[in-house]
Amino acid sequence: MPKRIAILGSTGSIGTQALDVIAAHPARFTVVGLAAGRNVELLRRQAELFSVAIATTGVDGADGLMRVAVESEPDLLLAATDGSVAFEAVFAAVERGTDVAVANKELVVAAGALLVETAARSGASLLPVDSEHSAIFQCLVGEDRSSVAAIVLTASGGPFWRTAREEMERADLRSALAHPTWRMGTKNTIDSATMMNKGLEVIEASRLFGLRGDRIRIVVHPQSIAHGFVLFTDGSVKSQLAAPDMRLPIGYALSYPDRLPRRNGALDALSALGGKAGEAALRYDFEPPDPVRFPCVALAYEALERGGTAPAVLSAANEVAVQAFVEGRIAFGKIPEVIEGTMKCSNPRELSLQSVRDADAEARATAATIVQTIERPSPS
Amino acid sequence: MPKRIAILGSTGSIGTQALDVIAAHPARFTVVGLAAGRNVELLRRQAELFSVAIATTGVDGADGLMRVAVESEPDLLLAATDGSVAFEAVFAAVERGTDVAVANKELVVAAGALLVETAARSGASLLPVDSEHSAIFQCLVGEDRSSVAAIVLTASGGPFWRTAREEMERADLRSALAHPTWRMGTKNTIDSATMMNKGLEVIEASRLFGLRGDRIRIVVHPQSIAHGFVLFTDGSVKSQLAAPDMRLPIGYALSYPDRLPRRNGALDALSALGGKAGEAALRYDFEPPDPVRFPCVALAYEALERGGTAPAVLSAANEVAVQAFVEGRIAFGKIPEVIEGTMKCSNPRELSLQSVRDADAEARATAATIVQTIERPSPS
Repeated sequence: MPKRIAILGSTGSIGTQALDVIAAHPARFTVVGLAAGRNVELLRRQAELFSVAIATTGVDGADGLMRVAVESEPDLLLAATDGSVAFEAVFAAVERGTDVAVANKELVVAAGALLVETAARSGASLLPVDSEHSAIFQCLVGEDRSSVAAIVLTASGGPFWRTAREEMERADLRSALAHPTWRMGTKNTIDSATMMNKGLEVIEASRLFGLRGDRIRIVVHPQSIAHGFVLFTDGSVKSQLAAPDMRLPIGYALSYPDRLPRRNGALDALSALGGKAGEAALRYDFEPPDPVRFPCVALAYEALERGGTAPAVLSAANEVAVQAFVEGRIAFGKIPEVIEGTMKCSNPRELSLQSVRDADAEARATAATIVQTIERPSPS
Repeated sequence: MPKRIAILGSTGSIGTQALDVIAAHPARFTVVGLAAGRNVELLRRQAELFSVAIATTGVDGADGLMRVAVESEPDLLLAATDGSVAFEAVFAAVERGTDVAVANKELVVAAGALLVETAARSGASLLPVDSEHSAIFQCLVGEDRSSVAAIVLTASGGPFWRTAREEMERADLRSALAHPTWRMGTKNTIDSATMMNKGLEVIEASRLFGLRGDRIRIVVHPQSIAHGFVLFTDGSVKSQLAAPDMRLPIGYALSYPDRLPRRNGALDALSALGGKAGEAALRYDFEPPDPVRFPCVALAYEALERGGTAPAVLSAANEVAVQAFVEGRIAFGKIPEVIEGTMKCSNPRELSLQSVRDADAEARATAATIVQTIERPSPS
């Protein structure tokens, strides 16, 4: 029996790559539901190509998302929308025990503790899609969680890994978008330049793997080959490595506990290690991130430590700050300032879907105000 | 209930380190049998310290080994003798379904196919003790064997990794014994200098993990931090890393499927990754071995390909050649020549404990003859 897959956010980067993986394995998967935002034309083609009964768009609103997540009766729901639009639909699926492949970062950052609690009650599995969290998850397969001492997430370092502080602070959009290894959307690429992406991933990892912040470390590894490490209490370390291709962790989340037999999979794996015998030596470099040039990392650890709605505030303030930078309203170096200011103005509340929404809205308003106070004069 | 452990070869390097590990975890393990060769005094002290009922020495012969392996009724037998002396005792334990931690390299190289067959029939588990095979075993935990595309064993490269061919060929004992990372016995250190150790490990890995030679690769990794890699069909790679300390893989074999909570285990694991945040960058280098300067590697692959008793012949010829080098009778560069010559003179036979013994004896005689023909004039 093929696995029944439903996708929230099927026309985005993760959604389309997931459909690529599914198309390559027609005997293993069947697509039972698709939800997209505004790209109606692509959604129509996807629904036709995969003979999908339930396909909904943004105009169908929350009802449409709920139909795809629940009424399509998937074995696995891929939650790949951005932001908070699909929170209710994903929670509804998890409540009924449906396994969820989680690519919706905001969901895990802002409401991860709730999500994990809900999954524990219903017996649903939460499968990471992010390459770093997939790496940790793969290293934990077959291991007892009580023997985990710590985990290490790797970072590419982003475009400013070797850039001086002064130059970073006045960096323009073009240089911030010049990511060395991964091709991603604008928001994710700016998050990579500030290293807030790693901060958010630390929070996600804390939720997904049940570890406190002091057990989660970051190392910069510019080659982007090793995606994560697990440190065990006996002194052993396990690592997962792969070429930087999102279809790999997506495929693993879709097919878990199996691994997909990819054409050239073994060759890809080998090339991640440095290629055929006789080729040049391969080097993996690892360095800790510089806390002075990347203050967003410490802000994320602080939000995790505070708990409650603090991660939701961090994430919302970061979105506002990044958007303001992209629009040319604030300097790159002001992004952490906006986030820190917003965090100072907010009191963490106990976690619920409602308090997350409230904290998110308030943080956006606060961050917008802070942006205005430090805004650069318009070039016109 | 503590796990009942019996050890063949308790006074050797692996045996004594295993007892160190056991002593650190008195609630988890109880020692029920010990067998040693000639070091009667150390054996007596070990038996007293661990209150062992059955302790035998070389003068007790095959009977003594059998009593420790079988009559002591262990849950786990650590097979840590050198050579072929304990083959029958280990097979007897495996036949009755006793799990065996295998540190007896010759056993797996020469009779591994038989051992694996016997274990499959009785339901006994074979647990690797070698750091490289333990690494592969750890990476395979929780994984489906059918998704394994290939494995990679790492090598330190030994003392001659950067030495020119001419210099290697006339290397003396002192330089061949100068191993850069691991402290081992003379035979093992010379095997490391010729890289025959990796060749033998390829054969062992083939037996333990059911993989053909073309799925097993070697990379030289001078830092000796990553001990092995598993390449999966989906393009993913898993690796195990640790400080070079044999007590770690020994402890894993003893405690499997648990991991021992070692004091400073997490710190040791972290230091394997390059230490605390703020410390210098860590580099891992990987290179394929040079087939011209390390011909023993290809000889081992050839023996594996031939099958039957060919690995037993390889191993026996290597022992004779190494001994001749240690005694100053042949040059370092002649070691592979003795092995190759012996292999050419032998026809592989079907595998049985008897054919292994016969092949071993014949190979030693042949190798000794070859040594005589190329022997250097005595310095006297």
